[in-house]
Amino acid sequence: MSKPGTLRDLFIDTLRDVYNAEGQLVKALPKMAKTASNPDLAEAFESHLKETKGHVERLERVFDVIGEKARGKKCKGMEGLIDEGKEWIDEEAEHDVLDAGLIAAAQKVEHYEIASYGCLCTWARQLDLDDAVGLLGQNLDEEKAADEKLTGLAESHINAQAASSR
Amino acid sequence: MSKPGTLRDLFIDTLRDVYNAEGQLVKALPKMAKTASNPDLAEAFESHLKETKGHVERLERVFDVIGEKARGKKCKGMEGLIDEGKEWIDEEAEHDVLDAGLIAAAQKVEHYEIASYGCLCTWARQLDLDDAVGLLGQNLDEEKAADEKLTGLAESHINAQAASSR
Repeated sequence: MSKPGTLRDLFIDTLRDVYNAEGQLVKALPKMAKTASNPDLAEAFESHLKETKGHVERLERVFDVIGEKARGKKCKGMEGLIDEGKEWIDEEAEHDVLDAGLIAAAQKVEHYEIASYGCLCTWARQLDLDDAVGLLGQNLDEEKAADEKLTGLAESHINAQAASSR
Repeated sequence: MSKPGTLRDLFIDTLRDVYNAEGQLVKALPKMAKTASNPDLAEAFESHLKETKGHVERLERVFDVIGEKARGKKCKGMEGLIDEGKEWIDEEAEHDVLDAGLIAAAQKVEHYEIASYGCLCTWARQLDLDDAVGLLGQNLDEEKAADEKLTGLAESHINAQAASSR
């Protein structure tokens, strides 16, 4: 499908985009967990990796619901965000500052997904795809919770330690 | 600065990233406004263009506050998001569906900025940069309001019309 002409086409196109994005994230999260020096942050990345694998499975169920084969479409947005994160991981920084940078990279990724799932939920409602609304809504809620967890970590000891190294 | 080692370095690095991102958006929004067929959506893009120019000015004041020269650093994240949007603008679609796609592209951009300003505000507080907290907080609030306005448009008549063309 190169020319999405209807809202259903747009829905499928965006579903393929986020399916690819989640796949990219499944590959990126283990390195982020390994790079994090704070154990709570490493645990948050590990736990989000499990959730992300669940998101991929839910997306496959959405493809099934609408009678389309599950396949991705290269997601340039996520690619750019992950490149930014990699660049940061390659930098030499104090452990606490590196953790603060990792949190920022992860929150950009979460917000990309929040925007995507928000649109997909709205469109699924308008297309009367009730089962899809439920599945996509669960992914959306988990992305929002992951973002809030990261904000909590950023506002707590991790950044405070980083600030002391200024 | 190629190796940000402190939280202040990370703050400046991210400030340069978002300064470049806002500059990219100033260039992209006029085309989005021109492409939108719904007059409310076109008006929302025009109005956000004015706000975005204000964000650039506030960022220049933040650079001033911290005694750094205002300069950008190529923002790959925003570049990827804008590329996605351009791809969509190039597609042939029903006007209402194109509008729905434009809203989705714009919301991904808004969420990128919400994540960036959220981190910058947290770091500015931890670095005791009170004036910067105020300026960055104003940009953050305007990005959140712009995102909510787009959600309102998506949930209203624009997508409902697009759904009727499925």
